[in-house]
Amino acid sequence: MTIKIGILGYGNLGRGIECAVNAASDMELVAVFTRRNPESVKTVSGVKVEALSALESYKGKIDVLMLAGGSATDLPSQTPEYAKYFNVIDSFDTHAKIPEHFANVDANAKAHGTLALISAGWDPGMFSLNRLYANAILPNGKDYTFWGKGVSQGHSDAIRRIKGVKDARQYTIPVQKALDAVRAGENPELSTRDKHIRDCYVVLEEGADPKFVEEQIKTMPNYFADYDTTVHFISEDELLKNHSGLPHGGMVIRSGKTGVNSEHKHIIEYRLVLDSNPEFTGAVLTCYARAICRLAKEGNTGCRTVFDIAPAYLSPLSSEQLRATML
Amino acid sequence: MTIKIGILGYGNLGRGIECAVNAASDMELVAVFTRRNPESVKTVSGVKVEALSALESYKGKIDVLMLAGGSATDLPSQTPEYAKYFNVIDSFDTHAKIPEHFANVDANAKAHGTLALISAGWDPGMFSLNRLYANAILPNGKDYTFWGKGVSQGHSDAIRRIKGVKDARQYTIPVQKALDAVRAGENPELSTRDKHIRDCYVVLEEGADPKFVEEQIKTMPNYFADYDTTVHFISEDELLKNHSGLPHGGMVIRSGKTGVNSEHKHIIEYRLVLDSNPEFTGAVLTCYARAICRLAKEGNTGCRTVFDIAPAYLSPLSSEQLRATML
Repeated sequence: MTIKIGILGYGNLGRGIECAVNAASDMELVAVFTRRNPESVKTVSGVKVEALSALESYKGKIDVLMLAGGSATDLPSQTPEYAKYFNVIDSFDTHAKIPEHFANVDANAKAHGTLALISAGWDPGMFSLNRLYANAILPNGKDYTFWGKGVSQGHSDAIRRIKGVKDARQYTIPVQKALDAVRAGENPELSTRDKHIRDCYVVLEEGADPKFVEEQIKTMPNYFADYDTTVHFISEDELLKNHSGLPHGGMVIRSGKTGVNSEHKHIIEYRLVLDSNPEFTGAVLTCYARAICRLAKEGNTGCRTVFDIAPAYLSPLSSEQLRATML
Repeated sequence: MTIKIGILGYGNLGRGIECAVNAASDMELVAVFTRRNPESVKTVSGVKVEALSALESYKGKIDVLMLAGGSATDLPSQTPEYAKYFNVIDSFDTHAKIPEHFANVDANAKAHGTLALISAGWDPGMFSLNRLYANAILPNGKDYTFWGKGVSQGHSDAIRRIKGVKDARQYTIPVQKALDAVRAGENPELSTRDKHIRDCYVVLEEGADPKFVEEQIKTMPNYFADYDTTVHFISEDELLKNHSGLPHGGMVIRSGKTGVNSEHKHIIEYRLVLDSNPEFTGAVLTCYARAICRLAKEGNTGCRTVFDIAPAYLSPLSSEQLRATML
């Protein structure tokens, strides 16, 4: 039976979800919902675009509503709100606010008999899963998460807010020396500066002062002050030509010991190299939407995270097929 | 509440499980059971050793019986047999016979109201899980599994059976060029010979002919004939000094594409570097024993695999703690 999907929000992530749903043979994309004028939005696959006001009328016509909004302002209200009508899934990634968001979504989903999953994607999401698995296997050990090489949208936005900056792209890059030490099982203590460098490509407004902009970037608290930061000034043409993609990735590494006297070292590493951050995030969300649809049909309600979902629910294959082909 | 564990079989894997259970703060190792004379077996941690004939009398005193026998002859009979009395877990790794083994264990566990998990460890086990997750996320892609660098016990045994060989150790090593091509997203077609080389360290009996032994190894069907194999003749002292460990590991890599026209490449890699294959396998089995104990207390019966277990069940932390610290 085909799983019917709706997408709320049509930015980079919405388009990433659209691609992943269309690539799934057991899913049908019913409509994209937008706060913009729907006539102004053209979907990549030609699927119908509806105004947000039409969403409630789709109750019963959509198995899972996939929320493609941002964590700062969209998801904290949207996920609990639409859990009243639909099974929902989001990629909420404000780590510190996950317990609060979970509680809000859980209350509404339970009250309305729906099932929800929050914080899917790759971090939170696949990286979280790998932290959990590796910690359970090696209780005596140390965790390391590295991000990149990849474009950080938040840091790129922070640069764009500086006076005199026309456009900017910021890459987060793991420090190779730190990565080598972790992979060698040396269990180093690493400061923020030891782990990542920040590489910035900046297009200036006409007449802007590069010295001022560079100083503003390098001293910006939280975003750049604690890192070794490099600033490159480039033309708008070069930015569009060489820095228009949204690659990302990283590694979750756990280094641990076993044995009678902790005499044996082990390294568990999970590594992602992604050409398109939003398309990969959309792909993860899509297989969790499959899981949520199935679990809802079994009568489950309330809020879940990736920690609560047995892996078999993610695959279109049956348990027998999985055991015969992937175990 | 403490989870009470029994171990059946006390070879390398049994000792690996013993270390992992002792390292788990929520577990208690009740006894090791052996087919040998129990007085001849000394456990690493001093835990009690019982004869196999005493096992049934422990019904009700053990939450999970962990089976540490071999897949060729022990587990096909032991796992279904002891599922009549206990919740059980094994590391059955004969991939082709998993469906049959699953059916046998499932029937007895259901009939006797117990819960079982088969084929845990790292392959099958963590590698299987990573194949499933990566296939669900990237349906348009290709899988690669590399093993090593590590000691293959089966291949070492095969060399030892050759006339004139006193002892031997065989290392399976991934071919770097193949690994590089896969990690670069080139999706190469790789033959058996392209993926792994086999490196053999052999101690000869006095008067044995090295030419004969080398020829016997390199032409052995299934084990060596399809690989580039190197044979080193060394002294018994050198074998004991430099080749007495049981390191292993490997990588599961999925290379896939997303996008409107499959224009974006992604690489998902899960990599293990293990100083001790049996201790790491024991560590994986131990956290799945925790999951089985919890799921049995919830009233579940029958047979499961790692695909059926929600990750949260593996951790001693509560769901709230997991969401707050690992998501």
